[in-house]
Amino acid sequence: MEAFTLSNTQKNRTTVDIYGQQYVIMGTESPSHIRNVASLVDDKMREISFRNPTLDSGKLAVLTAVNAVNDYLKMKDQLERLQSELLKEKD
Amino acid sequence: MEAFTLSNTQKNRTTVDIYGQQYVIMGTESPSHIRNVASLVDDKMREISFRNPTLDSGKLAVLTAVNAVNDYLKMKDQLERLQSELLKEKD
Repeated sequence: MEAFTLSNTQKNRTTVDIYGQQYVIMGTESPSHIRNVASLVDDKMREISFRNPTLDSGKLAVLTAVNAVNDYLKMKDQLERLQSELLKEKD
Repeated sequence: MEAFTLSNTQKNRTTVDIYGQQYVIMGTESPSHIRNVASLVDDKMREISFRNPTLDSGKLAVLTAVNAVNDYLKMKDQLERLQSELLKEKD
């Protein structure tokens, strides 16, 4: 089991299972939020593994991270567009 | 080198280096966007590795994915709050 700090202010310790391995995640986030994050990572890993069956689990995890960061950047773009739209509405 | 499909409609093939390994990422995204994503994943892995020096690279990658999905969900919450704020402004 690996202890991992999600945020700098440690508070909750939540044990999660991702792709057959246990991890202890520490953070101010609620255990249910942390379990939700872990379950999304687990789903993503299984989905990518299904499409790329020859990948070893290390590379699979890297590509899961690539996928998640890509989703994050798309969401960030969308947020920035919306923020400027909101600013215009307020003018 | 691993070929990995970021989006369903394949178009560009971009070779990136993440944490000392090469990956071929395929997707409709531009090569510069894909390189940006890869560089963020590489940075995140190095940052987490610095804070958790005993982690093996597979677990490190899983925790990088956990971190990225957590950031994604926070951004999604922010986006949803902004969307409802914008709807109110338009009323």
